[in-house]
Amino acid sequence: MSKIRTIISAGLLMGSASIVSAWESLPTTAPSPANNPTTAEKVELGKMLFHDPRLSSTNTVSCASCHNVMLGGDDNRPNSMGVHGQTGGRSAPTVWNAAFSKVQFWDGRADSLEAQAAGPVTNPIEMGMKNWDEVIVRLKAIDGYQSAFADAFGADAISKDNATKAIAAYERTLITPNSPYDQYAKGNKKALTAQQVRGLNKAVEIGCVSCHSGAAFNGNGNFQKFPVINNAFLEKKYQFSDDKGLFEVTGKSGDKHFFKVPTLRNIALTAPYFHNGSVKTLEKAVKVMARVQLDRKLSDSEAADIAAFLNALTGEFPKQSLPTLPATTGTSFN
Amino acid sequence: MSKIRTIISAGLLMGSASIVSAWESLPTTAPSPANNPTTAEKVELGKMLFHDPRLSSTNTVSCASCHNVMLGGDDNRPNSMGVHGQTGGRSAPTVWNAAFSKVQFWDGRADSLEAQAAGPVTNPIEMGMKNWDEVIVRLKAIDGYQSAFADAFGADAISKDNATKAIAAYERTLITPNSPYDQYAKGNKKALTAQQVRGLNKAVEIGCVSCHSGAAFNGNGNFQKFPVINNAFLEKKYQFSDDKGLFEVTGKSGDKHFFKVPTLRNIALTAPYFHNGSVKTLEKAVKVMARVQLDRKLSDSEAADIAAFLNALTGEFPKQSLPTLPATTGTSFN
Repeated sequence: MSKIRTIISAGLLMGSASIVSAWESLPTTAPSPANNPTTAEKVELGKMLFHDPRLSSTNTVSCASCHNVMLGGDDNRPNSMGVHGQTGGRSAPTVWNAAFSKVQFWDGRADSLEAQAAGPVTNPIEMGMKNWDEVIVRLKAIDGYQSAFADAFGADAISKDNATKAIAAYERTLITPNSPYDQYAKGNKKALTAQQVRGLNKAVEIGCVSCHSGAAFNGNGNFQKFPVINNAFLEKKYQFSDDKGLFEVTGKSGDKHFFKVPTLRNIALTAPYFHNGSVKTLEKAVKVMARVQLDRKLSDSEAADIAAFLNALTGEFPKQSLPTLPATTGTSFN
Repeated sequence: MSKIRTIISAGLLMGSASIVSAWESLPTTAPSPANNPTTAEKVELGKMLFHDPRLSSTNTVSCASCHNVMLGGDDNRPNSMGVHGQTGGRSAPTVWNAAFSKVQFWDGRADSLEAQAAGPVTNPIEMGMKNWDEVIVRLKAIDGYQSAFADAFGADAISKDNATKAIAAYERTLITPNSPYDQYAKGNKKALTAQQVRGLNKAVEIGCVSCHSGAAFNGNGNFQKFPVINNAFLEKKYQFSDDKGLFEVTGKSGDKHFFKVPTLRNIALTAPYFHNGSVKTLEKAVKVMARVQLDRKLSDSEAADIAAFLNALTGEFPKQSLPTLPATTGTSFN
């Protein structure tokens, strides 16, 4: 972790004069790994799997249930609700632009979209399948998946590896370019309001972009400690420190309270905020972040300016067709 | 009820020689009521509302959760799962071609799609909203719904009445024409296999179409008693009679165990079967129906033939775009 922390503390500090040229607009395509090049067939299959509630024990929870691409790529809940109404301690991160993060999950324990996709399906409080063997038995029982996997990967291709590859390929298409900010970054100075420009400059000045750097404002998938500053009042109110972040995975004391830096793209759509969804509004989240990460107490108008800027990070959502999921003809899993 | 029963017992009995000309193919459009003519704006709004989980107390259950138009218009569960993992005693009917039924719900208590749409939202074990006032407060807090309702109904139009009208308008577009059976009914004799033709003839011969009549094979929205014949073995196995059907609504003894005749369109996609979802496979459902409704004991091959015919009632699903739901910018309901 020490290397990562050094990179972050070096930060990205810029004078406001050079802001426009320094900002990056969001790429319209995401790179795919060498072992999973994106193809139309994989994307189509992945879209079906992503939306298929039969990947859960109860037939009620799909990936899209908590990462709803009809909304901001999450569920607008403090914590997600899995099978049998169970809830966990973390808030669903958005799937939009997740392709631009090096690591996935709040604690960053997955190093690829493929690795991430394998997790929730067999998590007992999320999708509740016993194991991936059970998932594969289901998929093999559905003729339409037999052919869709064959189209994407070749004959007899239904496997955990290919299912997660297809889901990841679909997720790499979930990109929201051309936000007002992107238009501004490309030189259209009218794309942001005066308030949004004030907010952008303030975000630079106080150091938000030290961590939330890069085109996706996610530090390119780095980790950061949260909270940095102990604030007894806020801690009592929001219980930020109950969750030890990366430490829960590694058990290393240096990883305590380290989390993946989340993207700020479409942040206006993904309330409530923080890893535990404990802060309900964007302006409050801005104030809390300034306080516990940067030791700054923002005025109402400063927080409103930054929130206005963050609203300019809401992008354009690609038009998608509603998938038709292949049937278990004449029978069902439940 | 006596009038309805008379109509049904008059039935529809045809010699197999005249079958093809007597069958009706499914209309490609559904009539709309005088007080809710279908418009593109209503359909678009209705599609959003139908898919919006924020119409539930937990933000997790939309109309589409139990009436999934990516699948056969239901959830492939014995009973549906509402907020907090709660379940009721009935199986979700398909929303596909529901426009062709005069009454809605298994007990037929709603006389229109509009009336039906109002129910689940405030049912405590389904979508769990306290009342429609609470729903309207939510919808009014979402700018995108303000404009979508205005486009569909005029200014300041957010109301329970208009929300349910929009949902019904969308549902009237959920029609699955051009099944193999429809092609056959229009004269293409090759559209059905020999087994499917045998099954069709057998379904006529034994009387399935006495109740399951008309283009949607739903008796045009009539009621029928179920089960007609007491069968202690099947009753013990499936508990069909626990649910009193229309009697639960009217309290009239003549309505005991009367249910809406469900459509057979896409029946191969909507397992498990019956009002309580107690029968898992289509062939078993065919045998049970013959036994308790028609006092016939079908052989395995007869049941397989009828099931094959029922598979020919799977239609073509209209291509739809995935709706983008308007945001609660910078905040959330949960």
